[in-house]
Amino acid sequence: MRCGKKESAVELPQPAALRADSREHAVSKQEIVYTAMRDAILGRLIPADTRLPSTRTLAQRWGLSRGTVEAAYDRLGAEAYVTRVPGSGTHVCAVVPDRYLMATGTAPGHRVAALPVAARQHTLSTVVSNRGTLGEVGVQAGRPFVARLPDPALFSLPSWARHMARSLRRVNTDTLSSADPRGLPQLREQIAAYLRTYRGIVCSTDDIVVLTGIRHALDLLARSVLRAGDAVCVEDPCYPAARRIFAQAGAVVIPVPVDQEGLECARLEDHPQARLVYVTPAHQSPTGATMSVTRRLELIDWADRNGGWIIEDDYDSEFNYLNAPLAALKSLDNSGRVIYCGSFNKSLFAGLRVGFALVPAQLKCPLLTMWQTSGRSVGVMEQLTLASWMQDGAFIQHLRLTRRAYQARRDMLLAVLDANAPGCYTVSGQHAGFHFVLWLRAGSDEASFCARAAAAGLSLQGLRSLCEDVRLAPAVIVGYAALTMAQVRYGAQLLAQLLVQPEGEAR
Amino acid sequence: MRCGKKESAVELPQPAALRADSREHAVSKQEIVYTAMRDAILGRLIPADTRLPSTRTLAQRWGLSRGTVEAAYDRLGAEAYVTRVPGSGTHVCAVVPDRYLMATGTAPGHRVAALPVAARQHTLSTVVSNRGTLGEVGVQAGRPFVARLPDPALFSLPSWARHMARSLRRVNTDTLSSADPRGLPQLREQIAAYLRTYRGIVCSTDDIVVLTGIRHALDLLARSVLRAGDAVCVEDPCYPAARRIFAQAGAVVIPVPVDQEGLECARLEDHPQARLVYVTPAHQSPTGATMSVTRRLELIDWADRNGGWIIEDDYDSEFNYLNAPLAALKSLDNSGRVIYCGSFNKSLFAGLRVGFALVPAQLKCPLLTMWQTSGRSVGVMEQLTLASWMQDGAFIQHLRLTRRAYQARRDMLLAVLDANAPGCYTVSGQHAGFHFVLWLRAGSDEASFCARAAAAGLSLQGLRSLCEDVRLAPAVIVGYAALTMAQVRYGAQLLAQLLVQPEGEAR
Repeated sequence: MRCGKKESAVELPQPAALRADSREHAVSKQEIVYTAMRDAILGRLIPADTRLPSTRTLAQRWGLSRGTVEAAYDRLGAEAYVTRVPGSGTHVCAVVPDRYLMATGTAPGHRVAALPVAARQHTLSTVVSNRGTLGEVGVQAGRPFVARLPDPALFSLPSWARHMARSLRRVNTDTLSSADPRGLPQLREQIAAYLRTYRGIVCSTDDIVVLTGIRHALDLLARSVLRAGDAVCVEDPCYPAARRIFAQAGAVVIPVPVDQEGLECARLEDHPQARLVYVTPAHQSPTGATMSVTRRLELIDWADRNGGWIIEDDYDSEFNYLNAPLAALKSLDNSGRVIYCGSFNKSLFAGLRVGFALVPAQLKCPLLTMWQTSGRSVGVMEQLTLASWMQDGAFIQHLRLTRRAYQARRDMLLAVLDANAPGCYTVSGQHAGFHFVLWLRAGSDEASFCARAAAAGLSLQGLRSLCEDVRLAPAVIVGYAALTMAQVRYGAQLLAQLLVQPEGEAR
Repeated sequence: MRCGKKESAVELPQPAALRADSREHAVSKQEIVYTAMRDAILGRLIPADTRLPSTRTLAQRWGLSRGTVEAAYDRLGAEAYVTRVPGSGTHVCAVVPDRYLMATGTAPGHRVAALPVAARQHTLSTVVSNRGTLGEVGVQAGRPFVARLPDPALFSLPSWARHMARSLRRVNTDTLSSADPRGLPQLREQIAAYLRTYRGIVCSTDDIVVLTGIRHALDLLARSVLRAGDAVCVEDPCYPAARRIFAQAGAVVIPVPVDQEGLECARLEDHPQARLVYVTPAHQSPTGATMSVTRRLELIDWADRNGGWIIEDDYDSEFNYLNAPLAALKSLDNSGRVIYCGSFNKSLFAGLRVGFALVPAQLKCPLLTMWQTSGRSVGVMEQLTLASWMQDGAFIQHLRLTRRAYQARRDMLLAVLDANAPGCYTVSGQHAGFHFVLWLRAGSDEASFCARAAAAGLSLQGLRSLCEDVRLAPAVIVGYAALTMAQVRYGAQLLAQLLVQPEGEAR
């Protein structure tokens, strides 16, 4: 892969922001260095395999402390723009396709960024010969270790009630009769501001459509984008509801394998009938892999060359336990081929039923026609309350609180497993979201492990039950976000016992 | 039609309820007589064309005042079970098909009833040779005379806010995570109770599915009931969104003409591929015709014989300005072929986004699968608030208030028209709902009348723009519910001027 010792031929100019008084800027010096380097990589000013200047050299050139440059390089490393090997320096590893540079459309400008590729402790490409026959496990909230659920107990109802009461006092009859299928402008504005600040996406109020959740978005998109005979490529393994929605809309659904870098985009070339690709780049559902920058650019390039569309399901990216805030695939989308979908049902509570899509200009009309015909869905009072709550900063505060809580639950879970079943398993995808993948010992029987867990009161979903054609090593999905610390501790001890126990002894 | 002078051969026994102390019963003596007679007609104990005993005779036989029997007969007349002609007595006119008597399934028991056939001042069957080319007029709230909109200013926000705050104080985390695609049981219970009491429908909490509105129901039903090649029969003229939803779901849409008795059910025999019939029996959208009992029974018989389904869109039946509360087509459904759809978006305010469907057992599974896959949609807080508000009696109070307000607006509108343009028009469908049909003078050009109205600031929809194949006399849809009295008065004066003005003089 990486062969070079050649250093960057281009000497990057010192970013203007570093010359000005840094107090004028909301962003840190570290952020400026990170952004300058990332843009240089995405703009191919520094091509793949090039060695970056050492931290000492760059710190001297740009008049910074070495620590600042170190931190920026670390973040570039975490997001897979560069690889850092002690002794041999920092090398660019993101491959930027030609067309990415030529693409026009809505230029992301300075906000382009990409996601951390998290610590991975297992390769997904391990192939096993037999596939588990376990069907999908029914979701039962509050039981260890159901995935994809937030903890509603962390949601501050009194704060919500205050905003609701305030919104009701101010509402007028025009708003009560609101017929805009895109949703209320107040809420769309707050969502757009959030996406700009926290997801690195250049967008405006007009680009947002308020929906009832990601599944609603997938349903509308499938029905408005696809024509007879069109195929949809989904990840393998995949979020099962997505697969069902596309099939229900009459699409041919093609599973494309996922490895530790996310969707194997090269395989898309085998499917000329594919018009839509559905991905979960931040925290692949279910494997937890984060899609690498190279793959992200490859995917956008595919869409660009084929007039295809990409749906980015950003279902739990608010919960990233690494340092850097995650930027979306959409933030790299120069040519308007990515439809970004997000949901408050994951970050607040499942019964809220408010989500949204960021829809490229070309798709807005068909989507809204479909949407208006089949009926507006989100109540105006819920929309007003959410807008007021977000504007007040309560959303960011809530995310901070829940992120800390979920991280503590994850840490406890991993600590108990490590103390009680060391060497009996590995985990991956634990850097973000509501769940991770726990890989069983080679040769384990996934279905019988899940059955033993169920007998012990644990709800584990086998990874293979979510696979279509791909063969993965035996593993289970472990959700932890919706559990109390006591439930986590208790559940983790049971799980550790099962991991330690030889299979024959069950039950 | 009616030929006979023969009197009922069967002497109906005195209803048991009349023998008991009437104070034990919530229902009046008049209600008991009405119910006994109606059930005897529906049970063919008194066949069509039979003359009922005179009011004097029956009053003597059953020990009642003649006034009580008169009132019961009047109501039977208003609901088209009988015709009353002074001098020749009261005759049964409802034709009950054989199969209706044999049908089993969910027996409606004592709650069978039917709807008033309102005063009709115009026959819809008038055929005109040329069809207006005017497209659908865009809806613009608050402008005379946009139809299908309630007045949100009549909605008591403080009362709603109280129930919302109370619901938020009581909500638990299980409810916040609620995953039942049918909706919260609290709300379904309230809806079922309302339907039992006010719409004459025998149903339970389990039969109700909470949705975001009628269009949402139509969309889900079309997608879960229809198979490739199935056709849907819709009324002609029809509620345009319904036609679009069925077409969007891939169905063949067949327009079936509507006359003053509603859908011409005999025509259904011409369409063996029809699997679903969509009707608005209470107040046909747009003509305002109320479907006669005979037609209702014919329609149910068609569904029964053909394994077909009927969707009853009961969009504005809460607003009936005659004495008797309207009973639904569903209340006659012996064999579970009718899917009843209602909406609070019409009775409360358009931005609420809560509606519901009453789904026969056989369809529950496919509908809920479709629904669960494409995503739950109604927020739990909205559901809890609505349930609490209904339980408190606020819904019935709100209906009473709005019914009075809309009736006053309708009365004012009709009075101004009558005073300023007598003889220049007729109206129909004014007994219920948010709009009526105003028939122009024979030979008038509907499209140019609408254009003249638009120039004067009035938003009128031409009836022919809602017709597919049928040819109706020139008419316009006049909505009044969402207007203030001042707007009604002003708009009616303008409308009267246009009606009086010879067409050549415009503009």
